[in-house]
Amino acid sequence: MGLAAMPFPPPAETGASLADIDTPALVLDLDAFERNVARMAEAVKARGVRLRPHAKSHKCPEIAKRQIAAGAVGVCCQKASEAEAMIAGGVRDVLVTNEVVGAVKIERLAGLAHIARVAVLADDARNVAQLDAVAARRGVRLDVLIELDVGAGRCGVAPGDGVLALGRVIAGARSLRFAGLHAYHGSAQHLRGPEERRAAIVAAASHALAARRALDGIGLRCETVTGAGTGTFLLEAASGAYNEVQPGSYVFMDADYNRNRWDDDWPRFEQSLFLLASVMSAPASDRVVVDAGLKAASVDSGLPEVHAWPGLEYVKASDEHGVIRVSPEARAPALGERLLLVPGHCDPTVNLHDWLVCVRRGKVEALWPIAARGALW
Amino acid sequence: MGLAAMPFPPPAETGASLADIDTPALVLDLDAFERNVARMAEAVKARGVRLRPHAKSHKCPEIAKRQIAAGAVGVCCQKASEAEAMIAGGVRDVLVTNEVVGAVKIERLAGLAHIARVAVLADDARNVAQLDAVAARRGVRLDVLIELDVGAGRCGVAPGDGVLALGRVIAGARSLRFAGLHAYHGSAQHLRGPEERRAAIVAAASHALAARRALDGIGLRCETVTGAGTGTFLLEAASGAYNEVQPGSYVFMDADYNRNRWDDDWPRFEQSLFLLASVMSAPASDRVVVDAGLKAASVDSGLPEVHAWPGLEYVKASDEHGVIRVSPEARAPALGERLLLVPGHCDPTVNLHDWLVCVRRGKVEALWPIAARGALW
Repeated sequence: MGLAAMPFPPPAETGASLADIDTPALVLDLDAFERNVARMAEAVKARGVRLRPHAKSHKCPEIAKRQIAAGAVGVCCQKASEAEAMIAGGVRDVLVTNEVVGAVKIERLAGLAHIARVAVLADDARNVAQLDAVAARRGVRLDVLIELDVGAGRCGVAPGDGVLALGRVIAGARSLRFAGLHAYHGSAQHLRGPEERRAAIVAAASHALAARRALDGIGLRCETVTGAGTGTFLLEAASGAYNEVQPGSYVFMDADYNRNRWDDDWPRFEQSLFLLASVMSAPASDRVVVDAGLKAASVDSGLPEVHAWPGLEYVKASDEHGVIRVSPEARAPALGERLLLVPGHCDPTVNLHDWLVCVRRGKVEALWPIAARGALW
Repeated sequence: MGLAAMPFPPPAETGASLADIDTPALVLDLDAFERNVARMAEAVKARGVRLRPHAKSHKCPEIAKRQIAAGAVGVCCQKASEAEAMIAGGVRDVLVTNEVVGAVKIERLAGLAHIARVAVLADDARNVAQLDAVAARRGVRLDVLIELDVGAGRCGVAPGDGVLALGRVIAGARSLRFAGLHAYHGSAQHLRGPEERRAAIVAAASHALAARRALDGIGLRCETVTGAGTGTFLLEAASGAYNEVQPGSYVFMDADYNRNRWDDDWPRFEQSLFLLASVMSAPASDRVVVDAGLKAASVDSGLPEVHAWPGLEYVKASDEHGVIRVSPEARAPALGERLLLVPGHCDPTVNLHDWLVCVRRGKVEALWPIAARGALW
């Protein structure tokens, strides 16, 4: 024991053509990706709020650095170990949009505050005391935001007096700084219609605004009120309640987000992330089987979709296989032929891979390590 | 570029207690695991067939070596890269229970035949020609089994004359050896009732037997007729059609397999694999949130289940969170307290982790690398 898990080489070399990439592989269309990064930076700048994209989607410091170069103030992470990978990759301002509980994890988080600005959420006074004790002993300062439950029903303090009580605890802690509110409504991102999303965010923003004002009233200024995702960020930005947004999936997009209906003035993020798969079996005229199943694409939000090949449908995923139904009118792919799939849900799909194979005009331009793949802690 | 993805240290050290394991972590109950390995070896031996367990479930050479020490003739893998990890870990007899298509993959597979016995499936004469060409050039011999579709509707030759035609192609190839039939019925494993599973395997076995006899009739002897999983292996073993079985999940079990009903004489495999998670938020009397979501447990076959804590139910998984509903009668876990979860589906859950934390009587006895985690190629 003690050996690290065996590393596999990347599925392509730079300069290779699409046909030379070993499959299954996560392929990033760099032109589309760069347009997505620019569109988001522009849209957020025009609304006068800060952009701190969520790195839980990409887990890739190369992407984080490009987001920051385009104007982002830093990144969000979900785990201390994810933050570690981002900071190791050069990021210097990280908000962990999650509670960090337990001595081992808090030590890990506080260690990062020696080399980067580190902020974290809290929804419990005992956790605040632990954060403070570790930060004090290590001689670092942690910024702490209150997580407010604005409708997600997951973590967070419910709107009301609990917010003020927790704000006082944070503000009174010696090695912590009260830094604001986290008011993220996750499930709102995937409501299909723009009106449903608007209604959810109007409610979330009114809770956030009320909490911010109440905290103001006891002398606790919210430097940051953050939330939002790819499905709603313009709503939070326009609400008057938020001054920072944290969309993540917009760099890639996925089949689930592509099922949303968008207002006409919503930025058109393009599908930039694909799962390249090969036909490994062509046993019948109406069926082929590709080499990408559950271990290459997360199916929690639906099956992958076949890109740009009318009449093909990915109908069944098993661990290492994807069954593709071929309609009678479609040209059936041949044995060994490649398909581009659009993942159902980008975040957990990226977490299954070690490499992003970055492609421009049919050539592999770069290989970016998904450095925080498997960063569970 | 060219850096490998950042490696994270294991979530525990040997000698640590359960409370010191960082979460989320995959925990293996060694006593239960060893009983499962012994029970399977004994059950298969009593039926007079060979055992070649499937390593796609565990991806861990330490487990493969223990299975082989208990009598298994080798392991099955699903991918050439998975076989590579097993052979690097000391296994010397591997059957890739899958088609391996495309030059890069076939080169990888053939390279392994220099140091281990390597067998692979085929369902297409063009693929057989590619396998033969690469094996000939490299001066190795590959054993090739025909994949027969016995009801799964995935890969494989349909029962009938196609089997004989493909058998002749394999037998006529200079650097390949015709080695038999692969007749696996995957979906039968999870039919809930023993009678349904029996009916499915009776049909599969009759196809396998007919194909074996037809091949015999043209002078092609099936050294191996293999198939079966944890849900059905005794049925294949008793059928007279199969002489090798390839169950995988029995070493771990999972919530999905635990929903099967079993005949009284079926070996009682125990749940040995758990996902250890911590309560990271306790925001309401009827709800706590644990630090294990979609990126720590695959939900393709249902959500994880809470182990040995009546009144707690894992009701919602998001990327990094699991929402646990606490019934009014139950003791609610406190902030930081640990839960053991039973994964919904063991294979893709194991593939999310780099380490198995092996525990006996509450202490970490070993840390086994999941060396083929992410072996997609």
